[in-house]
Amino acid sequence: MSLRIHLVHAHPEPRSFVAAMRDTILRVGAERGDTVTLSDLYAEGFQPVASAADFGARQDPDYLVYAQEQRQAYRGGTLAPDIAREVERVLAADVLAFTFPVFWFSTPGILKGWIDRVFLSGPFYGGRRIYGRGGLAGKRAFAAIGLGGREQMFGPDGIHGELATGMLRHFFQGTLGYVGLRVHRPFVAYHVPYVEPVARAAMLADLETYVRDLESQPTLAMPDLEDFSDTLAPKRTPGKD
Amino acid sequence: MSLRIHLVHAHPEPRSFVAAMRDTILRVGAERGDTVTLSDLYAEGFQPVASAADFGARQDPDYLVYAQEQRQAYRGGTLAPDIAREVERVLAADVLAFTFPVFWFSTPGILKGWIDRVFLSGPFYGGRRIYGRGGLAGKRAFAAIGLGGREQMFGPDGIHGELATGMLRHFFQGTLGYVGLRVHRPFVAYHVPYVEPVARAAMLADLETYVRDLESQPTLAMPDLEDFSDTLAPKRTPGKD
Repeated sequence: MSLRIHLVHAHPEPRSFVAAMRDTILRVGAERGDTVTLSDLYAEGFQPVASAADFGARQDPDYLVYAQEQRQAYRGGTLAPDIAREVERVLAADVLAFTFPVFWFSTPGILKGWIDRVFLSGPFYGGRRIYGRGGLAGKRAFAAIGLGGREQMFGPDGIHGELATGMLRHFFQGTLGYVGLRVHRPFVAYHVPYVEPVARAAMLADLETYVRDLESQPTLAMPDLEDFSDTLAPKRTPGKD
Repeated sequence: MSLRIHLVHAHPEPRSFVAAMRDTILRVGAERGDTVTLSDLYAEGFQPVASAADFGARQDPDYLVYAQEQRQAYRGGTLAPDIAREVERVLAADVLAFTFPVFWFSTPGILKGWIDRVFLSGPFYGGRRIYGRGGLAGKRAFAAIGLGGREQMFGPDGIHGELATGMLRHFFQGTLGYVGLRVHRPFVAYHVPYVEPVARAAMLADLETYVRDLESQPTLAMPDLEDFSDTLAPKRTPGKD
C-alpha cells in the first residue's frame, strides 16, 4: 500500500551527512511507491519562536495562554499561515519522518520551535487524548539522526545512558508518542564528524535497508492509558501487582 | 559569600506565572546579597537558530561543522555579538539559573536555540572535558519551571516517568551537567494554568524558600568519568561488579 510520508529536515549545512540521510529517505520512499513531501526548516527559513504573533485573532488579547489560543485559532482558521501549512502537511501524512543532528541530546532549536508551534493543542492532543488516544493515533513516525558521540557512550551502562528511551525520551515518547504516533526505533548514525567516507556510505546503505523495511522496524513501548485513572494517576500501587 | 547569579528566562507572556518566578528569583537573590543579572530571551528578541551566520570568519567557508567553527570563532573573537554577549554573561556567573515553561517535556524552542548557540564547544566542553571535568566545573545551576501536568503524572510509576531525571534528563544532565555544572534539583510548579491565585502565591512562597536555601537544595547525580575509559566506554562489564 502506498503511503504518504512527510519528512521534516533540520540541518544548517546543505551538504551534511544528515542531508544525505534526508535524500536517501526521499529516494527510497519514492522507489517504494510512497509519496514523500518535505519540510526543510533551514532552507525554508522556518521561524521557531512560539509567540502571540502566531494567532490572527486572540481569545484573550490581554494574557497569552499558548495552548488555549492554539485550540481557538485552529477552530477559527486564524493560525499564522506558516503554522497552518505545516499542520496540514502533518495531518495529511500516514508517516511522519525526521532527519536532524542531535544537538545537546535533543533536537536543534529550529526543530524544537517547529514542534512548539505545529503540534497543536486540540487536533494533536488534549486532556486524556494522549499516547494511544492521541490525535495522530493510526499514523506512524520514525527519525534518522546523526550525532558526534560513539555508540559505546549509550545504553544501560553507557556514560550518557539510553539514547532513544533516555536522553531523547522527551522527543520519541514525550512528543511523538504523546500525540498518538506509533514510533519506530530511530536510525542512529554515530560519530558522524569523525568517520571516513566509506563508513558514511555504509551507514547510508543501512538507512536504505531501514527505510525499505520500515514496516518491520520495531516500535518503542509507550504508556498504556488503561493503567491510569481519569486524572492520569497510576492505578496500580507499588507492591500490589 | 555573595554570588553572581545569571538568570535566563524564556516565556512568551510577560505577566505569566513563570515571569513571577523570574521576579521572585531576582528579588530574593538581591535580598541574599547576590548580584543577579538577566537574559530575558523573549523581551530581548533572542534569535535561536544556529547557523553559518553565527561566525564572522570561517575556518571552512565551504562546509559548516558548527562545533568546529564555535571553537575557532571563540579563539579568534569572531562570534556573532549576541552569542559573545551571552557567553560572557554565563562565564562571569557563579550560578546559572533558568525560568521557563516546560513545552513538550523540554525547553521552549527559543531557549533550546540559546543553548545550541551559547554553550560553545571549546570553553564549555570538549573531548573528555565533560561532566565533572566540563568547562563550567566549579559553577552551579538551578531551574524553576512551570508545567500544565500534575505531579502524579511523574515519578517511577507516573504515566510520563521521572521528570528531572527522565523526560528532562537531556537538559539537566545532558546540557547543564555535561558542561560541568553542579545541578540542583529543580523547583517545579505543577498544573500552573489550572490553579487558583492562592495556590500560585503558595508556590511562589515555596520558591522563595528554595532560593533562600539554595545551598542546601540537593543536587542531581551525574556520571563519574572515573568509571569510563579514555574513549568513554564503560570500564565495568555487566555482571562483573
